[in-house]
Amino acid sequence: MSASTLSQRIFNFSPGPAVLPVSVLKEVQDEMMCLPGAGCSLLEMSHRDKQFLDILHGAEASLRSLLGVSDEYAVLFLQGGARLQFSMVAANLLRGTGKTAEYLLTGSWGKYAIQEGAKEGDAKAIYDAKAKNYNVVPTASEYKASSDAAYLYYCSNETIQGVQFASEPACSAGVPLVCDASSDFLCRPVDMPKYGLLYACAQKNAGPAGVTVVIIRKDLLDRASENLPGYLIYKNHAENDSEWNTPPTFAIYVLGKVAKWIANDIGGLAAMKSHNQKKAATLYDVIDSNAGFYQGHAEQSSRSLMNVTFRLPSDELQASFLKGAQSHDLGNLAGHRSVGGIRASIYNAMPMEGVDTLASYMQDFAIKNG
Amino acid sequence: MSASTLSQRIFNFSPGPAVLPVSVLKEVQDEMMCLPGAGCSLLEMSHRDKQFLDILHGAEASLRSLLGVSDEYAVLFLQGGARLQFSMVAANLLRGTGKTAEYLLTGSWGKYAIQEGAKEGDAKAIYDAKAKNYNVVPTASEYKASSDAAYLYYCSNETIQGVQFASEPACSAGVPLVCDASSDFLCRPVDMPKYGLLYACAQKNAGPAGVTVVIIRKDLLDRASENLPGYLIYKNHAENDSEWNTPPTFAIYVLGKVAKWIANDIGGLAAMKSHNQKKAATLYDVIDSNAGFYQGHAEQSSRSLMNVTFRLPSDELQASFLKGAQSHDLGNLAGHRSVGGIRASIYNAMPMEGVDTLASYMQDFAIKNG
Repeated sequence: MSASTLSQRIFNFSPGPAVLPVSVLKEVQDEMMCLPGAGCSLLEMSHRDKQFLDILHGAEASLRSLLGVSDEYAVLFLQGGARLQFSMVAANLLRGTGKTAEYLLTGSWGKYAIQEGAKEGDAKAIYDAKAKNYNVVPTASEYKASSDAAYLYYCSNETIQGVQFASEPACSAGVPLVCDASSDFLCRPVDMPKYGLLYACAQKNAGPAGVTVVIIRKDLLDRASENLPGYLIYKNHAENDSEWNTPPTFAIYVLGKVAKWIANDIGGLAAMKSHNQKKAATLYDVIDSNAGFYQGHAEQSSRSLMNVTFRLPSDELQASFLKGAQSHDLGNLAGHRSVGGIRASIYNAMPMEGVDTLASYMQDFAIKNG
Repeated sequence: MSASTLSQRIFNFSPGPAVLPVSVLKEVQDEMMCLPGAGCSLLEMSHRDKQFLDILHGAEASLRSLLGVSDEYAVLFLQGGARLQFSMVAANLLRGTGKTAEYLLTGSWGKYAIQEGAKEGDAKAIYDAKAKNYNVVPTASEYKASSDAAYLYYCSNETIQGVQFASEPACSAGVPLVCDASSDFLCRPVDMPKYGLLYACAQKNAGPAGVTVVIIRKDLLDRASENLPGYLIYKNHAENDSEWNTPPTFAIYVLGKVAKWIANDIGGLAAMKSHNQKKAATLYDVIDSNAGFYQGHAEQSSRSLMNVTFRLPSDELQASFLKGAQSHDLGNLAGHRSVGGIRASIYNAMPMEGVDTLASYMQDFAIKNG
């Protein structure tokens, strides 16, 4: 069955939930009826079972190893996605401090984040790329971060616009840097000691929907009021090994397998970055060499390795492009409904073959329709 | 492979995550590499994809049909488990009302719920079975519910103690009845029009960990302040078809299959209840006929159909019982770490064969050690 089922798979450019490594899916399939040694499926296993705790701790260890996370940080597996983090970050780190939280706004997700932040205290945008239609991230000279902010918040990769910070933005010493890395988590190494808190929902690069990884410096755990809803208090999860309540066991199990795939099959995050740079360059090269036909959204310096966003000369050509793509087994290339256009999401698990097939299709389409 | 893998499965009495129907696991396994017609795994599919929306709406339709949920109610698929509902119920329905929320406390989960409720407003226990060591649920004459409470809250089945309400508790007209049905959801029909809100995390009777079903009467959606954290506002989810943010797609997909299994393979909730009564009676009969050896925790009138809790004459015999059970492929029978003893969780998907095997083992163990 596997062969014929596999042959039905297309190249899936979905922005998330998104493509996963075939080898990971195969392992999940093989273990579905009975996890070896468990007597039951992972889906049926208590989160207190020693075998599940080994899976949970294994996933944590893989993340710590890949990202260089020291014991100064707690690694949490939570639910509720980035949307709940928009609130939890501010509820834990801003509420009651009397300070201001500073935000760099480079796209849609940062804008949603500051809306929730403002419910918890003084949340201020110190940079907003609105005038440039969110096609760029700022350099250090383009914003002024204060030295006593509650935190400095940014979204490392804006999935909808396809703009990405090339590295961590400048941040005052003593101010926790907070990052929503939902759509570029594990796509490259990070300079972990720069962060106060880094979080990511899993359903782009790290696993299925349903689990959100939060990496938080332990000294920040004491800022939250005990009067917050219990689930929203990071400390509750940190003190209970992500088992303050039943964690999303299956999503954690898959995430652990994806992390191992990056470490063992790819060779770690530096190798992952190199793969991702090669894939992204392949598509951006087609855009640049057909600049009169394809219009990339992001400025070159801010281009995302994960989400390649562009437009064609007309809505009709875009519709024709999407329809033709399907017949080449290239799926889910429509841009976000709020901005339109085309978006090719090429997360970690998108193989080079898929990118090459898309690049070839784009080149042909430009020649035929340009 | 399936045959040998299946043969490794034990009878799994885990309190949750818990046993699932083998036919559901098999379908999930078959579709893991490629959902028919999708070109990708369900794990890789956008939550905005029409095929996923059909799955989401199908799960909702199955729940509405099984439970008799009218259009007066919204059915939501959320994250965060019962613990987040402890807060969301009170944040949405109590905060800012100036009213009192009334709680019936019949076990551990009700006690956790009122702790979170008290953070949001005046939350009062109008019944507390503490003096009886939480071995019983109240009759209508044992508590006095006010006619203008924010809501009347109860937990229909206390998983840890193994006590269950036989039917909905008496509630004043005009006061919303709120129920945590996490561990007996879909085990029997409910009288849906009696409820203001009924919720359940899925990982007992309805699916894997990671999704929580909330069924809420639509007129209650307007009580919440817009200043709550956005994820905590029921209305946000209701107005966006549970897609205010990425829902836990895989857990919803499995839950939909379990609901269809109850409808099609079992024959609906009345038939499910009949199966569950027969299974529970089999175990309680062994306890009652060996009353000097097995001591059931719950009073007979309050016995749970889902979690059969009992003790043996000594800790040594309990340890010996658990060890011997393993050699009969009877797993996960230890009581909750907070109360000890033995707990056999016999949720919907536990087959009669598993219960019969356990009953036979219990009978033999009592004869040999009594």
